[in-house]
Amino acid sequence: MTARTPDSARDIPEATVARLPVYLRALTGLAEDGTTTCSSEELAATAGVNSAKLRKDLSYLGSYGTRGVGYDVEYLRYQIAREIGVTQDWPVVIVGIGNLGHALANYSGFRSRGFRVVALLDADPDRHTDVVAGLEVRSFEDLEAIVTEHDVSIGVIATPAVAAQSVADRMVAAGITSILNFAPTVLTAPEGVDVRKVDLSIELQILAYHEQRKAVAGSEDVS
Amino acid sequence: MTARTPDSARDIPEATVARLPVYLRALTGLAEDGTTTCSSEELAATAGVNSAKLRKDLSYLGSYGTRGVGYDVEYLRYQIAREIGVTQDWPVVIVGIGNLGHALANYSGFRSRGFRVVALLDADPDRHTDVVAGLEVRSFEDLEAIVTEHDVSIGVIATPAVAAQSVADRMVAAGITSILNFAPTVLTAPEGVDVRKVDLSIELQILAYHEQRKAVAGSEDVS
Repeated sequence: MTARTPDSARDIPEATVARLPVYLRALTGLAEDGTTTCSSEELAATAGVNSAKLRKDLSYLGSYGTRGVGYDVEYLRYQIAREIGVTQDWPVVIVGIGNLGHALANYSGFRSRGFRVVALLDADPDRHTDVVAGLEVRSFEDLEAIVTEHDVSIGVIATPAVAAQSVADRMVAAGITSILNFAPTVLTAPEGVDVRKVDLSIELQILAYHEQRKAVAGSEDVS
Repeated sequence: MTARTPDSARDIPEATVARLPVYLRALTGLAEDGTTTCSSEELAATAGVNSAKLRKDLSYLGSYGTRGVGYDVEYLRYQIAREIGVTQDWPVVIVGIGNLGHALANYSGFRSRGFRVVALLDADPDRHTDVVAGLEVRSFEDLEAIVTEHDVSIGVIATPAVAAQSVADRMVAAGITSILNFAPTVLTAPEGVDVRKVDLSIELQILAYHEQRKAVAGSEDVS
C-alpha cells in the first residue's frame, strides 16, 4: 500500500472519518504536554479506542509509524488535520442566536479547529443590536449576501425546532452545502447537501448505561 | 446464544454502547411516523450505519428480528432503552448557568430520554435570582445537599474551563459518579467515576471532511 494523499483517499470508511477528529484531539493534547513521539498504544488509550483499530484507521492515511519509535506527534497531527480538511479556513454562519447560539459563537473549540464564525443571524429584530463574540447579530435576510461575500459552505442551525427546516431551505438556496443542526428536529435536504444533527443527550445516555452497570454490580456485591 | 438481560450483558463493546442511543433515536423517529415493524436495512439506513453492523450490535442484546418481518419497532425500542438504562429516571444537576447551561436546562432531548434536571447551580450570586426552565438557579454551595436529597449520580459541567476541575472534584466528593463535561478542558477523576467530554466541533470536522471531498470532486469535474 502506498502513501495516500487527501485527493486519492475517497474510500475511508465513515466510522474511521468519525474517529479522525478524536485522534486529532488526542494528538493535540499530547503535543500540548510536550510529547513528541507516541506509540499506537499510548495514542489509542488517549483517544479511547483499541490500538488495533487505531492502526487500521491510520493505515487509510498511509500512516504506519516507525517500529520501536511510534508516531511523530506533530507530523501525524498535520496528516490527520489535512485529511479532515481543518488545515484550511472554514467560514461558518450561525443562525439562531438564543442561549445555544450565544454559547456556540463563544465556543473556543471552533476557532482552534479552523472554523471561523463570520456571521450570526437571527430572525428576531430585538436581537440585532446585540454584539456576541465580537460580531453584531444581523438579520436573517442578510444570509445570501453573507454566504456570497465570505464563500460560506457550512451553516449551523441553533433555532427552535419549528424554524429549523425553513432556515435549512434558505441556507441550501443560498449555496450552503453542509449543515450542522442543533435544533431538536430531523431536517431534509437535497442530494449533495450533508446534514449532521447534534444530539446533546447521546453522551448522557452512554453515561447512564455505565451508571446502570455500576448499580447492578453494587447490588450484587451486597447480595 | 440465549437472550440476555441487562444484568448479564456486561460485555457489550464500547463502540456498540455508543451506537445504542443512535438506534434508539432512529426507532423513536420510526415509531413517531407510525411504523410498527422495520427491516434491519431500513433501521440501519435511518441510523446511518451498515446493516451487518446493526445486526451484530443488536445480537448483543439478544435481538435478532423475525425473518421476512424484521424488528418490532416498539419492542426493540423498549429493549434498547432498558439496556441503556433510560427506562428509569435519572436526576441530573447542571453546574454553570451561562448561555450553554441555559441552553442545556431548556434542552427537550434530556427530559424525553429519562434525564430530569433537578437543580441548576452557579457560583455567581448575581445569577441566583434567575429562574431557568422552571428552576431557580441556586448556589454551588448547595451541591452536597441536592445530591443527597435527589440521589443524583450524574452531573453536567457547563462552567468556564478554569472552574471545571474544581467543580468535578466537588461533584465526586458529593457522591456523583458520572460527569458530562462541556467545558473545553480535560478533567481527571478517580477510578470508578466516568467522565465524558462533549466536543461540539467533532461534527463540524466530519462535515469539513466531506466538504473538502466535494471541493476536490468539483475541481476534477472541470479539469
